[in-house]
Amino acid sequence: MSITVTPVTGLPEVRPGDVLAELIAGHAELADGDVVVVTQKVVSKAEGRLVEVDPADPLSHKGVVGSESVRVLRRRGDLIVSETRHGFVCANAGVDLSNVERGYAALLPVDPDRSARRIRDGLRARTGLTVAVIVSDTFGRPWRRGLTDVAIGCAGIAAVVDLRGTPDTYGRELQVTEVCVADELAGAAELVMGKSAGVPVAVVRGVDPAWLGEGSVAAEVVRPWNEDLFR
Amino acid sequence: MSITVTPVTGLPEVRPGDVLAELIAGHAELADGDVVVVTQKVVSKAEGRLVEVDPADPLSHKGVVGSESVRVLRRRGDLIVSETRHGFVCANAGVDLSNVERGYAALLPVDPDRSARRIRDGLRARTGLTVAVIVSDTFGRPWRRGLTDVAIGCAGIAAVVDLRGTPDTYGRELQVTEVCVADELAGAAELVMGKSAGVPVAVVRGVDPAWLGEGSVAAEVVRPWNEDLFR
Repeated sequence: MSITVTPVTGLPEVRPGDVLAELIAGHAELADGDVVVVTQKVVSKAEGRLVEVDPADPLSHKGVVGSESVRVLRRRGDLIVSETRHGFVCANAGVDLSNVERGYAALLPVDPDRSARRIRDGLRARTGLTVAVIVSDTFGRPWRRGLTDVAIGCAGIAAVVDLRGTPDTYGRELQVTEVCVADELAGAAELVMGKSAGVPVAVVRGVDPAWLGEGSVAAEVVRPWNEDLFR
Repeated sequence: MSITVTPVTGLPEVRPGDVLAELIAGHAELADGDVVVVTQKVVSKAEGRLVEVDPADPLSHKGVVGSESVRVLRRRGDLIVSETRHGFVCANAGVDLSNVERGYAALLPVDPDRSARRIRDGLRARTGLTVAVIVSDTFGRPWRRGLTDVAIGCAGIAAVVDLRGTPDTYGRELQVTEVCVADELAGAAELVMGKSAGVPVAVVRGVDPAWLGEGSVAAEVVRPWNEDLFR
């Protein structure tokens, strides 16, 4: 009934062209049904999603933020909260300088669900195991201070588990209980990674097998414009 | 290096006046440094935060929502997104009918940090152990579908861990990495609770000991009005 969350240590610095599935298979002890959480930073690096910025100018990546945004929601000082073409709303369109070589900024993967599928397929090919993969990133949110890791892509697991209609312990129908387990798994993984420890992968073991199967952050988590009360 | 998240099963139905620390101490295997996550629903029940509603009128709790709100942010159909007097922004001001006896609605605890402290002190008195306690609730959020569990109160653990200034793996200063570990722990606990399984408590073991100590959701997580871009 317990779940365990284990950091995958000893991975080398990831460079463009690296095959993440190979690196992970070589360093993680995996089992069928595990959920492998991989941070966006190493996915972007492996996929070559890096652009040059002026290392002497702390704001030179702001032009990149503009081109990565389809819509700016808020601006205060240096902070830009914008919507990416994936439909994510986050600071600086996900463009990030931390843990990236000086003079470069990392962009979000073009299609993070596809990134997750590629890692999952690669792990299956190398290990024979069927695991789920979540690509995570660190986002802020309105109304609450502090950042949390959320899922920007997934494969082999439902992002949102729909418990609507499951009777509660009083036998009544629950009205709305769609739980975003992908975000909760991404956050749980972050608890063992640490920001500066350089641990970009964690393995969650023991999740409800009913959650495993088809899944997509783009299709399940990104809230369509016309449903959203805060855009 | 791993963390484990374990549901606490076998707890009886909680009623007003019950001492949660006693129930938890009798059913959980605890150790120093554990984080005990308790859902708001049982905290509210133990504290008698229940009000009568008309069981024949599915909207009768909406009046309660009004009196629990200091400000309504959005309204669409039956959905009210409002700010509670704690400063939480959530649907229906946290007023909830699910897993509550028919004819009653559960309100949020008056001071969830205090609720967490009371459980923590009670566990220390009964077991001699020093644990942290998080009171969790299930909130929606803008821009992303699906609900996640977040912390509404805590004791014995920092809600937000400030990693600003910790050098990244390239030796540069990180600019902003304040991680809301309390929310990530609440979400991790939810992964083993299940909505209708009636498991209101989970124990997280193995968190970074540096996070343990003073903590408060009200002081650390609730974003002051004047800092908030989305209120």
